[in-house]
Amino acid sequence: MDNTKNQTTLATLGEFGLIERLTKNIQIQHKSTVKGVGDDAAVLGFEGKQVVVTTDLLTEGIHFNLMYVPLKHLGYKAVVVNLSDVFAMNAQPRQITVSLAISSKFSVEAIDELYSGIHLACEKYGVDLVGGDTTSSLTGLTISVTAIGEANQEDLVYRSGAQLNDLICVTGDLGGAYMGLQLLERENEVFKVNPKEQPKLEGYDYILERQLKPEARGDVVSALKNLGVKPTAMIDISDGLSSEIMHICKASKVGCSIYEEKIPMDFQTRKFADELSINPLVAALNGGEDYELLFTVPLADHDKIKQDPDITIIGHITEESTGTNMITGAGTAVALQAQGWNPLG
Amino acid sequence: MDNTKNQTTLATLGEFGLIERLTKNIQIQHKSTVKGVGDDAAVLGFEGKQVVVTTDLLTEGIHFNLMYVPLKHLGYKAVVVNLSDVFAMNAQPRQITVSLAISSKFSVEAIDELYSGIHLACEKYGVDLVGGDTTSSLTGLTISVTAIGEANQEDLVYRSGAQLNDLICVTGDLGGAYMGLQLLERENEVFKVNPKEQPKLEGYDYILERQLKPEARGDVVSALKNLGVKPTAMIDISDGLSSEIMHICKASKVGCSIYEEKIPMDFQTRKFADELSINPLVAALNGGEDYELLFTVPLADHDKIKQDPDITIIGHITEESTGTNMITGAGTAVALQAQGWNPLG
Repeated sequence: MDNTKNQTTLATLGEFGLIERLTKNIQIQHKSTVKGVGDDAAVLGFEGKQVVVTTDLLTEGIHFNLMYVPLKHLGYKAVVVNLSDVFAMNAQPRQITVSLAISSKFSVEAIDELYSGIHLACEKYGVDLVGGDTTSSLTGLTISVTAIGEANQEDLVYRSGAQLNDLICVTGDLGGAYMGLQLLERENEVFKVNPKEQPKLEGYDYILERQLKPEARGDVVSALKNLGVKPTAMIDISDGLSSEIMHICKASKVGCSIYEEKIPMDFQTRKFADELSINPLVAALNGGEDYELLFTVPLADHDKIKQDPDITIIGHITEESTGTNMITGAGTAVALQAQGWNPLG
Repeated sequence: MDNTKNQTTLATLGEFGLIERLTKNIQIQHKSTVKGVGDDAAVLGFEGKQVVVTTDLLTEGIHFNLMYVPLKHLGYKAVVVNLSDVFAMNAQPRQITVSLAISSKFSVEAIDELYSGIHLACEKYGVDLVGGDTTSSLTGLTISVTAIGEANQEDLVYRSGAQLNDLICVTGDLGGAYMGLQLLERENEVFKVNPKEQPKLEGYDYILERQLKPEARGDVVSALKNLGVKPTAMIDISDGLSSEIMHICKASKVGCSIYEEKIPMDFQTRKFADELSINPLVAALNGGEDYELLFTVPLADHDKIKQDPDITIIGHITEESTGTNMITGAGTAVALQAQGWNPLG
């Protein structure tokens, strides 16, 4: 396929032309969006609600590789990772702003692709795009998204509320996004050596989707509300289970025991880890980018959550002095390591 | 001076260490800042107020050149350009988030310098730093700032409210930031040829400060409130007077006449333009980065504003059909050109 056909340079449109093109079809969905794109600032009105704000910056070559990440997926993911932070406050996302720094190597059509993913995420999660900034960069693409959400004061959940004996829960399964990335990187290496070789991705659609098109777990936030369960502490898993549970424990001044055998992992995650001869546990604990929720609930809520197929209880909160531990299959306690995702390394 | 002494690599600290270092001294100033840095999102509470949100992305080599822009000034300016947008809504800035993408060439001390400027601006304008993201980039530095402000609904001023016969006003003087940039670029070229040559900056401290350390005109927003004047339309001058007045006219569906001889310019702006044999009017109309306010007021408010030394009346609003014009010293009407600042060109 010839991708260079019908491509328009950014300079043809100019800054104002590009902004007009990118913002012309924006529909306002929320009453709280008083004024969206088109003035010096957006105006939001939240009568009697708390407003939550979160922001993420994604840079080419660090957070994504355009050799194998389609721009539409990238736009979708850039929004989702921010919404995930809003849900992790037990709040509902309402608005986003999107800023782009683009090098001249990108065509207008490429930016349209990126925006189609952004719009898709806005539609799926019911958020309004209310502003941003579009500028150029000397090299590569940078995407900065800020998400704004709302919650009643009494509904907000912080990292700091975990209590002794609380159950530790995660949504979905872990490690898939990391294994999906390993797969994409392997095939990219093969492609560089032999561009005619077809990528071997069959049977791994789930972990690819986990990496390329993650979802934010607003569904679980709603489900918990319907079950009458308010988590005591919550965080989204962007940097791997290990560092996230340590964030909760540090902020809540408690310890934890999580059980190796309880950590939910998909068949494809385990299978591909096996193919690469790596321990899938490493992907779950330190891999990152799963965007599942990690939360704690009082022991008394056990019966309310145990039937939910999206929620797995993986351990419990302990005294701070016992530290943050994983109990292995053999029953040994191993101290967790906050390896995290170190983009500064 | 040896700048490489006592420099710490970013990798030494790691991501969490860097975040801790950058956020440890943050003081919360506003009641509306319920929760700042340290969770998935910040929490803001604005009882009965409207919330305004604006964001800007600054990239190395496009918006700033680290050959001659000190990092402290850069941090200050990155905040100020966003606060300027909040003031242009006739709102008060309350919180900011700051995201950085940093390449490994920067030391921890360099990032501290950048943050010292960010903190200085927060202090000066009374805003809380409530969140952000710190990540790496393959090349260069990118800074994304989002500012959040508040206003009573009835106080908000949009671009779209200018009425026939309204007076067109600007604050301060124009073109200085652009001429300051020309001076810095000239001296940088000289430096590249002969690093031992001392830069010739004497007598141009004002235009240098306009470029390196601009201020946002919150003082004028307050002054207008004290005078009992509410602008009908307002915008901040980031892209040059010409494109900003055209934004107001387009949004308000009106035309304008501005008078060449009324456009306020500083002596240094004119002098350095003369030295470079360029027309200083070009700097005022199309130069950008002055961060002054452009606004319209009803004719009836003339007497209230005429004594304010920070405000200059430069023209009036006309019928849409007459277009957007500048009346030259010779009395000729010239159509304004929306040249703007085109970082995509």
